[in-house]
Amino acid sequence: MKYTYKVPIRYFDVDKMGIVHNSMYQIYFEEARIDLVRSGGYPYSTIENEGLIFPLSEVNMHYKSPIKYGEVIFVEVSTAYVKNYSVKFNYSIIKEDGDDVCNGYTIHAMLDYKSQEFREIPDPIKEILKKYSA
Amino acid sequence: MKYTYKVPIRYFDVDKMGIVHNSMYQIYFEEARIDLVRSGGYPYSTIENEGLIFPLSEVNMHYKSPIKYGEVIFVEVSTAYVKNYSVKFNYSIIKEDGDDVCNGYTIHAMLDYKSQEFREIPDPIKEILKKYSA
Amino acid sequence: MKYTYKVPIRYFDVDKMGIVHNSMYQIYFEEARIDLVRSGGYPYSTIENEGLIFPLSEVNMHYKSPIKYGEVIFVEVSTAYVKNYSVKFNYSIIKEDGDDVCNGYTIHAMLDYKSQEFREIPDPIKEILKKYSA
Amino acid sequence: MKYTYKVPIRYFDVDKMGIVHNSMYQIYFEEARIDLVRSGGYPYSTIENEGLIFPLSEVNMHYKSPIKYGEVIFVEVSTAYVKNYSVKFNYSIIKEDGDDVCNGYTIHAMLDYKSQEFREIPDPIKEILKKYSA
Repeated sequence: MKYTYKVPIRYFDVDKMGIVHNSMYQIYFEEARIDLVRSGGYPYSTIENEGLIFPLSEVNMHYKSPIKYGEVIFVEVSTAYVKNYSVKFNYSIIKEDGDDVCNGYTIHAMLDYKSQEFREIPDPIKEILKKYSA
Repeated sequence: MKYTYKVPIRYFDVDKMGIVHNSMYQIYFEEARIDLVRSGGYPYSTIENEGLIFPLSEVNMHYKSPIKYGEVIFVEVSTAYVKNYSVKFNYSIIKEDGDDVCNGYTIHAMLDYKSQEFREIPDPIKEILKKYSA
Repeated sequence: MKYTYKVPIRYFDVDKMGIVHNSMYQIYFEEARIDLVRSGGYPYSTIENEGLIFPLSEVNMHYKSPIKYGEVIFVEVSTAYVKNYSVKFNYSIIKEDGDDVCNGYTIHAMLDYKSQEFREIPDPIKEILKKYSA
Repeated sequence: MKYTYKVPIRYFDVDKMGIVHNSMYQIYFEEARIDLVRSGGYPYSTIENEGLIFPLSEVNMHYKSPIKYGEVIFVEVSTAYVKNYSVKFNYSIIKEDGDDVCNGYTIHAMLDYKSQEFREIPDPIKEILKKYSA
């Protein structure tokens, strides 16, 4: 099962070539995965209040075709694996007509914000993530 | 040979966790490679005036440790290969004390801006890029 | 009459203090006014295709209270005046409960992109803008 | 006396019109004033460690002429007034040849981060700010 997030593209996201700047894709990935977890009943603020952070350890992206300002795009996100301390997300950015724009993945480790040590992903989050396993 | 670019980190680059946001690394990579080519006598405006663009086809990054606001960091950039129509850059982001922050690469294809078709990388740019081959 | 634009706040918009960075308000203003004109049947791409640009000549903002990540906010935008070559927009950013976050205005002049000379605002755009005069 | 900050413009700062996006000027203002205070021996981290924040209450900018990628620009910053709890900065962005790009000001109040209540600006910071009073 995939989670679909509609990206609100801003004029600011577009670069001098008239297309969405390559660095913005990571921000779209981020919003999509935050929205996936929020949709399962776990808003970002709750994760923070528990003193947890979920930093990236790796990102990979293949750019297929550019995105222009005004185009409607979606991020489809699913989980490739959900481990005790880490998770891998897969992403596809697609246009309204189904055209592939970008594929990629990110890997995250769950940490305690203060100690910066590994922390087990809380069960309710694990369940949300597993619901969207590819 | 590696080209070293000192990154001017902005307060804005830092996120809610107090560290440089993951999407900024791509912007640092970009400034480093533009600066490498400029240092060889080929400013970005010249490339543009020739109707050429150099979009990303792939990016990969491994995040090792976070960057805090106020820290001095450098991007070391070199070329993994320089082909007729494409180039691969390798990057390391390091701190003043030599600590590894991030490793990654980007792959670019050279295109004609108007036709969006492949174009051969001009010889003077190729020479600059090859000078920094790892 | 006011046009109301719901702002999709991104995690990236938030700074080290945990609140939306002051520079983002201008981006929210921008999306709100582009959306106002688009809602009247004039998408940004049409303005561009006509070779017109609408750069800022002045901006002013009073910040009342901070915006936190996860909060739902709206930009209310109206026009203070619509002249032959320029327009002034008024903005209020408000929270769901009606709390005032920021008031401000921007002034724009319409220019020809190539010549950078003043151009009269096309009548259909003028009508849209006047529909939302305060 | 004015403090002069050389702005490292990024390719990312430039928008679809090929000029620096209007929202970036606020980020340049911010870096300039942080750099002014840092130059006086008070790095941003010290302010934070004291539990102080310095949010904007007002910003105003007049845009005179656009900034293109590759141009060298400077922010000249000085203080219009330094009160017990607040400060007003004046800014001019100028090009290498002295051309005026933008004038503006920002007003800030000093707050305690936790209580969000007003706090007196520490004397050493006041002295730095007064050194640059116009």
